[in-house]
Amino acid sequence: MRADSSANHFVARQGRLRSLMEARDVPLLLVTSPVNVFYLTGFRGSAGVAAFDWEGASLWVDPRYTLQAQEQACGARVLEERKGLLKAVGGWLRSKGTTRVGYEDTHLSCAQFQELKKGAPSRVRFLPAGGMVEELRLVKDPAEIALIREAGQITARVFQEVLPEVRPGTRESDLGAEIEYRMRRQGAEGAAFDPIVTSGRRSALPHGRASRKQLGKCELVILDLGAILDGYAADMTRTVYLGVPSARLRRLYGSVLAAQREACEAIHDGCRAHAVEAAARRVLASKGLEQYFTHSTGHGVGLEVHEKPRLGRGEKTVLRTGCVVTVEPGIYLEGFGGIRIEDTVVVGAQAAEILTPAPKDSWFTG
Amino acid sequence: MRADSSANHFVARQGRLRSLMEARDVPLLLVTSPVNVFYLTGFRGSAGVAAFDWEGASLWVDPRYTLQAQEQACGARVLEERKGLLKAVGGWLRSKGTTRVGYEDTHLSCAQFQELKKGAPSRVRFLPAGGMVEELRLVKDPAEIALIREAGQITARVFQEVLPEVRPGTRESDLGAEIEYRMRRQGAEGAAFDPIVTSGRRSALPHGRASRKQLGKCELVILDLGAILDGYAADMTRTVYLGVPSARLRRLYGSVLAAQREACEAIHDGCRAHAVEAAARRVLASKGLEQYFTHSTGHGVGLEVHEKPRLGRGEKTVLRTGCVVTVEPGIYLEGFGGIRIEDTVVVGAQAAEILTPAPKDSWFTG
Repeated sequence: MRADSSANHFVARQGRLRSLMEARDVPLLLVTSPVNVFYLTGFRGSAGVAAFDWEGASLWVDPRYTLQAQEQACGARVLEERKGLLKAVGGWLRSKGTTRVGYEDTHLSCAQFQELKKGAPSRVRFLPAGGMVEELRLVKDPAEIALIREAGQITARVFQEVLPEVRPGTRESDLGAEIEYRMRRQGAEGAAFDPIVTSGRRSALPHGRASRKQLGKCELVILDLGAILDGYAADMTRTVYLGVPSARLRRLYGSVLAAQREACEAIHDGCRAHAVEAAARRVLASKGLEQYFTHSTGHGVGLEVHEKPRLGRGEKTVLRTGCVVTVEPGIYLEGFGGIRIEDTVVVGAQAAEILTPAPKDSWFTG
Repeated sequence: MRADSSANHFVARQGRLRSLMEARDVPLLLVTSPVNVFYLTGFRGSAGVAAFDWEGASLWVDPRYTLQAQEQACGARVLEERKGLLKAVGGWLRSKGTTRVGYEDTHLSCAQFQELKKGAPSRVRFLPAGGMVEELRLVKDPAEIALIREAGQITARVFQEVLPEVRPGTRESDLGAEIEYRMRRQGAEGAAFDPIVTSGRRSALPHGRASRKQLGKCELVILDLGAILDGYAADMTRTVYLGVPSARLRRLYGSVLAAQREACEAIHDGCRAHAVEAAARRVLASKGLEQYFTHSTGHGVGLEVHEKPRLGRGEKTVLRTGCVVTVEPGIYLEGFGGIRIEDTVVVGAQAAEILTPAPKDSWFTG
């Protein structure tokens, strides 16, 4: 990751950040969210404060992370601080002429903000600037897409590998363990989130987790999984039926699959997030199933499993080439079960490309 | 977990919270940290706001969590809110006479605090009250200790199970995967943290992670692992040598082991955190190894892997019966390797009891 080419990614991102800062009239920005610090500098510790202005970038870390920061951080001067990073940064602002300082109000706790202000000169006006780095992260660069693609391939492969274990008698939690284990063995850092495995009536819980329940005959099983690789996540869901599906169940599954395909096909550079949602909803409404579709159609994926944009009603964000989002309509029938089909896709000029290539047609075992 | 006896735990904790609020003159406290909400009510969602005052407790959740909150939350009225929990809570304050409202300034972001204030009446004075619930969490009740004990037993068992795989040729990351997998199979929710497996020179990195490196002959291997069970973590480290240790290495290992034993023996109800640190440091200093002991001796464990108190220099916290802490001295020799031995222990009236019962004497394979 520290090859010259990757160093360039971070420097390029810092350049894009400076353009945005200029447009927003934020001459100096303090970044405290670890994910955002990683995105901009390549430093992946759990604590660190980065400051960006026209002159350059500085990164304050505590002694635990000095060596790691020196090895990882690109385009930023590393400063070791033993007694409180934020107080030190506040003090450093005294040496700067800047009076307008942006900070990530969506990440910084009230107590941390007090610590920062304590050290800072009184002339400084702190500007809430949360969400600026997240705005940059909306469109992924080729290096990021490559990592999500690889995470998606591992995810799809692991799903195929565990499929033989998706059978009556297996415990949901054992499938969860198996999924995480195989992701690690395939070179992922692990699972980006606790794999969701819900079966039978439990599959009707959109936010259920894997339990000790054993899968049963003639049950629907939802598997929602994603690998994480060098910090980047994928997210995929498949639904499996353990038996020979009835005509009604075939119709239900077919409807969700059609909704997912239509939503994917609605995606192209320049489309709005709510249009993708609408495409999925239209299909389910036409089958009389809209009331069972109780969540939004998708969300951004990248350094976080859930990031902007949300593909939901009223969401006006324009999707651009390089945005990576999930498309995941689902229906949940209480007392019966649920069906959800999800892929992670990258937005292209004309269409979306699926990054989680596991089959969706061979969905029953009977 | 929702049996009557466990409901009583949550009600008892809320009682202790109200006593503390009275002592601190905080008539109404808003709790926003998910871990603290879980501790006080039993609700384990990722989002929720709880309010406690003399009259009772309320818990606001979004529609995703309504059902779960109704099932899990003890001693709190559940309120569903579709449009911003904090704004709703601010509005609810209008119906209360209270002018002094405590909030968790160490958890709440600046942006969230603004949202809360927006809805609230102007007469309300918000009091930073972060750390109050953490203070209660310092001493664990019997139900909590039982869970940590079980997590510790799983941790120790899994260590013993993977020990045959700790041999030349095995990858560090594969051992990490194996550890997590076996924890889940043994009924744990998973690993409380990414297992640390560092070998050879890498074992000299106190905060190293598992890499793709294969273990080699005549190398030290540090394994730092902990299971999580119903939200409660254990934390344990063992060091293994892949060969027949030299006299020097035996002395080094023996010194760390002695430091760990002395530190454990220094623990009893009423002792101060810094005294435990001093006991470990004294042993290592007497062997001329103090300079290689570069971190503190331990930390609290419970709903978080790292919580209060820190067992470090200058830490005056008094350890009471029911506190659960790690004892983990280590030495790190650059270019050579590291040795760390760690147990999770619970403080008793006269002594500490070890909750991670894996052997420390059979530490080499040769």
